[in-house]
Amino acid sequence: MIYFNCDYTQGAHPEILKALVKTNLVQTDGYGEDPYCEKARALIREACKAPEADIHFLVGGTQANFTVIRAALRPHQGVLCPVTGHINVHETGAVEATGHKVLALPCGREGKLCAAQIEAAVKSHYEDATHEHQVQPGMVYLSHPTETGALYTREELEKIGAVCEEWGLFLFVDGARLGYALTAQGTDVGLFDLARLCDVFYLGGTKCGALFGEAVVVLHPTLKKDFRYFIKQGGGMLAKGRLLGLQFLTLLQEDLYFSICKKANLQAQKISSACQAAGFPMLAPSVTNQQFPILPDELLPLLGRDFTFSYWERVDSAHSAIRLCTSWATTDEETDALCSAILRLGKAL
Amino acid sequence: MIYFNCDYTQGAHPEILKALVKTNLVQTDGYGEDPYCEKARALIREACKAPEADIHFLVGGTQANFTVIRAALRPHQGVLCPVTGHINVHETGAVEATGHKVLALPCGREGKLCAAQIEAAVKSHYEDATHEHQVQPGMVYLSHPTETGALYTREELEKIGAVCEEWGLFLFVDGARLGYALTAQGTDVGLFDLARLCDVFYLGGTKCGALFGEAVVVLHPTLKKDFRYFIKQGGGMLAKGRLLGLQFLTLLQEDLYFSICKKANLQAQKISSACQAAGFPMLAPSVTNQQFPILPDELLPLLGRDFTFSYWERVDSAHSAIRLCTSWATTDEETDALCSAILRLGKAL
Amino acid sequence: MIYFNCDYTQGAHPEILKALVKTNLVQTDGYGEDPYCEKARALIREACKAPEADIHFLVGGTQANFTVIRAALRPHQGVLCPVTGHINVHETGAVEATGHKVLALPCGREGKLCAAQIEAAVKSHYEDATHEHQVQPGMVYLSHPTETGALYTREELEKIGAVCEEWGLFLFVDGARLGYALTAQGTDVGLFDLARLCDVFYLGGTKCGALFGEAVVVLHPTLKKDFRYFIKQGGGMLAKGRLLGLQFLTLLQEDLYFSICKKANLQAQKISSACQAAGFPMLAPSVTNQQFPILPDELLPLLGRDFTFSYWERVDSAHSAIRLCTSWATTDEETDALCSAILRLGKAL
Amino acid sequence: MIYFNCDYTQGAHPEILKALVKTNLVQTDGYGEDPYCEKARALIREACKAPEADIHFLVGGTQANFTVIRAALRPHQGVLCPVTGHINVHETGAVEATGHKVLALPCGREGKLCAAQIEAAVKSHYEDATHEHQVQPGMVYLSHPTETGALYTREELEKIGAVCEEWGLFLFVDGARLGYALTAQGTDVGLFDLARLCDVFYLGGTKCGALFGEAVVVLHPTLKKDFRYFIKQGGGMLAKGRLLGLQFLTLLQEDLYFSICKKANLQAQKISSACQAAGFPMLAPSVTNQQFPILPDELLPLLGRDFTFSYWERVDSAHSAIRLCTSWATTDEETDALCSAILRLGKAL
Repeated sequence: MIYFNCDYTQGAHPEILKALVKTNLVQTDGYGEDPYCEKARALIREACKAPEADIHFLVGGTQANFTVIRAALRPHQGVLCPVTGHINVHETGAVEATGHKVLALPCGREGKLCAAQIEAAVKSHYEDATHEHQVQPGMVYLSHPTETGALYTREELEKIGAVCEEWGLFLFVDGARLGYALTAQGTDVGLFDLARLCDVFYLGGTKCGALFGEAVVVLHPTLKKDFRYFIKQGGGMLAKGRLLGLQFLTLLQEDLYFSICKKANLQAQKISSACQAAGFPMLAPSVTNQQFPILPDELLPLLGRDFTFSYWERVDSAHSAIRLCTSWATTDEETDALCSAILRLGKAL
Repeated sequence: MIYFNCDYTQGAHPEILKALVKTNLVQTDGYGEDPYCEKARALIREACKAPEADIHFLVGGTQANFTVIRAALRPHQGVLCPVTGHINVHETGAVEATGHKVLALPCGREGKLCAAQIEAAVKSHYEDATHEHQVQPGMVYLSHPTETGALYTREELEKIGAVCEEWGLFLFVDGARLGYALTAQGTDVGLFDLARLCDVFYLGGTKCGALFGEAVVVLHPTLKKDFRYFIKQGGGMLAKGRLLGLQFLTLLQEDLYFSICKKANLQAQKISSACQAAGFPMLAPSVTNQQFPILPDELLPLLGRDFTFSYWERVDSAHSAIRLCTSWATTDEETDALCSAILRLGKAL
Repeated sequence: MIYFNCDYTQGAHPEILKALVKTNLVQTDGYGEDPYCEKARALIREACKAPEADIHFLVGGTQANFTVIRAALRPHQGVLCPVTGHINVHETGAVEATGHKVLALPCGREGKLCAAQIEAAVKSHYEDATHEHQVQPGMVYLSHPTETGALYTREELEKIGAVCEEWGLFLFVDGARLGYALTAQGTDVGLFDLARLCDVFYLGGTKCGALFGEAVVVLHPTLKKDFRYFIKQGGGMLAKGRLLGLQFLTLLQEDLYFSICKKANLQAQKISSACQAAGFPMLAPSVTNQQFPILPDELLPLLGRDFTFSYWERVDSAHSAIRLCTSWATTDEETDALCSAILRLGKAL
Repeated sequence: MIYFNCDYTQGAHPEILKALVKTNLVQTDGYGEDPYCEKARALIREACKAPEADIHFLVGGTQANFTVIRAALRPHQGVLCPVTGHINVHETGAVEATGHKVLALPCGREGKLCAAQIEAAVKSHYEDATHEHQVQPGMVYLSHPTETGALYTREELEKIGAVCEEWGLFLFVDGARLGYALTAQGTDVGLFDLARLCDVFYLGGTKCGALFGEAVVVLHPTLKKDFRYFIKQGGGMLAKGRLLGLQFLTLLQEDLYFSICKKANLQAQKISSACQAAGFPMLAPSVTNQQFPILPDELLPLLGRDFTFSYWERVDSAHSAIRLCTSWATTDEETDALCSAILRLGKAL
């Protein structure tokens, strides 16, 4: 059985394990105040061209999301988010558990918000005579890539950033799969753009080659203040914080992060091409490591004999979209095996 | 200027003030443990034919809603609710502030949920392999009448009650305007039905003739336990609790509650008839004290010269729905004046 | 049976009921945006000599406390409070329910904090190398009078205010019984002092002659912003907000608030003198309307034949402190009857 | 510089890294549903002789604490805890952030609660006429060993367990350093005792040889239900959950967990003996891996030249207690070096 159901079915890139083994007996301070974390922070600041940024390492995405959102919002505020956003549908209400409403906005299959839509939502809030009876929008949450692997363009992010600035909203980008976004074919969004347009975002490690870990980059001065208290309160302050620093240090030295994500993207494009050649349309276009082909229901068990995939959603009474993911660990042989299987299924149509 | 914008523009029915004045110097215990509260509880239990019910008096609707919901749900649970439900749109996220997601379901202009829709939502939760990553439905919240004045039938409530029982959901009915529902023409839902079908509901006082106050009727044993702690924690335990007991005692003695609401319904029907005679369609049919006619935008300022109303929503580029409410304090003269004005506006079309 | 167990056993001062009756049919906007509220606000601003203050009317004390504290603190902050403070012991954890720790500091029987103690607590927080693992003090909560009826002097408040300003703490005074504090014999603290020294405080109505209601005076600009959202979210926005405005308007016109509280203080002093003459020591000195004599346990049932009182605390194996309260409704006859009974009990010793 | 300031200054026991490297490319499901987690669960159940126990792996202690407490308590309940307990003083109010008050009880320097004290607290709650205005005790939180390294005896835990059962309190033992407790000289408390007396407890990994991780053992049926939702909501569900399973599997196979903790205890006893031989009294007796000698202040910088330690607390104007910890990584050479240094300091007295 070959696993394509998600991008966290294996351990970590071997370089990371090597670094852990090599440094195992070195004694350091805890809670992220060690030299490895410091070096990793320096590399991230440099990569973002943001010498003033604060960098914090957290263990996972849900933790990063609610910690950032709780730190940013006042109690009467909520976070604007595409209705398919991870915080809205896949985190067991972690944001609401901190007291804040997720203000879900409609979005297409790409899972993106646009500047006009955000502006309309905020304007309509303030124009309503009873706005004090409603949750005030305080932040915009996006993911890049989105849940279905789509990317924002630099222009789209600039427009969203401008709306956020005009209306006093924080802009937060969930980058759980940011490595794939930054290395996707044709993207014009770099780390530098995120650092200048967002108030806070993160570089995901868990889904991009690390054992675990997310590097939160805090740009806005208001959010910087006392951020470590929030991490501790939310259960995100790893005692052996160096484990996080070491992993990001390894990923960012010699651009490992980017090279492994780029390779996974290319493998995913092969899979996408195979799907389309086989006559399976895609739920939404994706240039990153997740692909969402639509298959006739009767083919799912056939594909499932040799490969794992995620059931994504029902498309019509006879068809479903599935998710196929590549990762740093996906081999070309595995990719080829999957593509062949897909093409065979296509002929069976 | 005559106020039709809401049903709480004046004080209370004169009988209530009379009772307050009469008992003012009587000394009683506080926090709802006085004889007036006890008598009012007995009357409500009798009216509901629910001798085992616990009755608690709270000051207002938002307070009643979040107190009940917080008492009922475990932290990973949310409350199913029509997307237009008061807790979803008009309480500044009070439910989320207690840590729970409002699971908004689509609804038509009537603002109602149906049993099939609730069942589908719960089933889809449990059938999803990643349901532990999602908020678990734990309660259904309805209002009767709905936000746009519509009513459930007994059969509809019975079906919803059956789904709730099957899937282990609490059923909660917000009765901020329950008096109007119970006395509306043609309804087959009585207090007895609510008491046997719901786990908890309330009889609204604030919008039905009292100065303030909601009488929460708790039927389910699990919800009864320690409920007074929740009231106190949520800021809802009035020191001079007798004020609430006295008001409900006055309203329920000699059926004052029902007679004043019935009269307001009849006045509202007159207004509805005038609107339709004038050629103004209704946003949704309502047999209760709130009416939502759709008017051409240019007529709004004309109507607004002599009458207040609530702007409800934009219907198309040239038309808007407004809300007109009657109450215990609405006189027939005021109703007639409004109807005449509407008919005149109709001719001006 | 004559009630001395608390200061909310009866309705309201008759002038308040008169005002409610007189204005009952006047139509106004809801939610505190009516002319009565506006006038009451103007009177309070004037009495405080604080023309820039924002005034909000809430229904009760617990509600006022958690609404103010939630509005003021960021999630990692807590509120410093005497260990006997109302928010620490008598509000069912309402502050914790909003996510904030009550940082209880030791205090004597008077129930007061002092500036040095507050400063020591804050300094020790910041000096601890692991302060990010601890709750950051963000506010100081006092009550004036305290739970046992004691008063701060102007100098004490000035010193506390200076510490708060130096360390960036908000200063919040719970004035549930403020009327008694302001009119107590020998006090040098006036409304003007509170307005210049606090960031937020309230004038209690519930325990000072109103049916219910607390007038929150917000001085600090940061706390003013969006405060009405917090009121609504916490369930404190009364639909018929005018009821609150009208009550404070009545209390503050012609100094009714002050005259009724002063009279109750004088009656309480008589009771205190009787206790001491009878040989019963006081738990702590009080110049306000609550008195806490210490009685032999066997006398409690004797006193309880004709008078209600609150059991306060066990003092030793044979003695207990009880609470005796006067209020606007206490008559001189009732006071005299209580004093005679106490003197008789003293002779029985 | 040799680190004795805490027990998490290094990586993990080499066997753990070996296991991670060996299994790195194996593909498994995520979120703790992999074969390594299953095997580790089986070993823990066996070690506890609790075949019905549910075992969940979380990343860290603060996370484990608030997740368990939030799952167990209803909103009006709090958790009884020694005033020095970790949740009360070192987790940035994480428990309060979930809405619950920590009900701190006084304790001696050993940091222990006793059954009588717990019973008195609960009785006094229910006997108070205004208990609904107070937080209801719902759980007892202990740590074993305590913050200062002390241990409960089996009899003490049995008595506490009996009080908890009688009063309907959950009993929760924080076992962040449980390995040291279970292998301490003279203890009569085994895993089996914890499993039969507690409703929930955890075996700490982070401080007992793992990179990170705590194994939560849930015994009480009520707490078992839906526990994975709580883990996800609190940010504690590791995507690559196998990392946790693998570590506990490694630690529990061939009793590695116990042998490394036992060795650290012995080293700590050597340090304790050296301190006492040198004339430095201990703050509290400890038979586990943490020792708290009291030193004259002027000796601290001398000791600090070659060794790190934690400053613990001021004892008097000239003396302070410090913390010295051993761990799986402490060598006998390091221990000897520290003991010699302490003895030298003693001579300098």
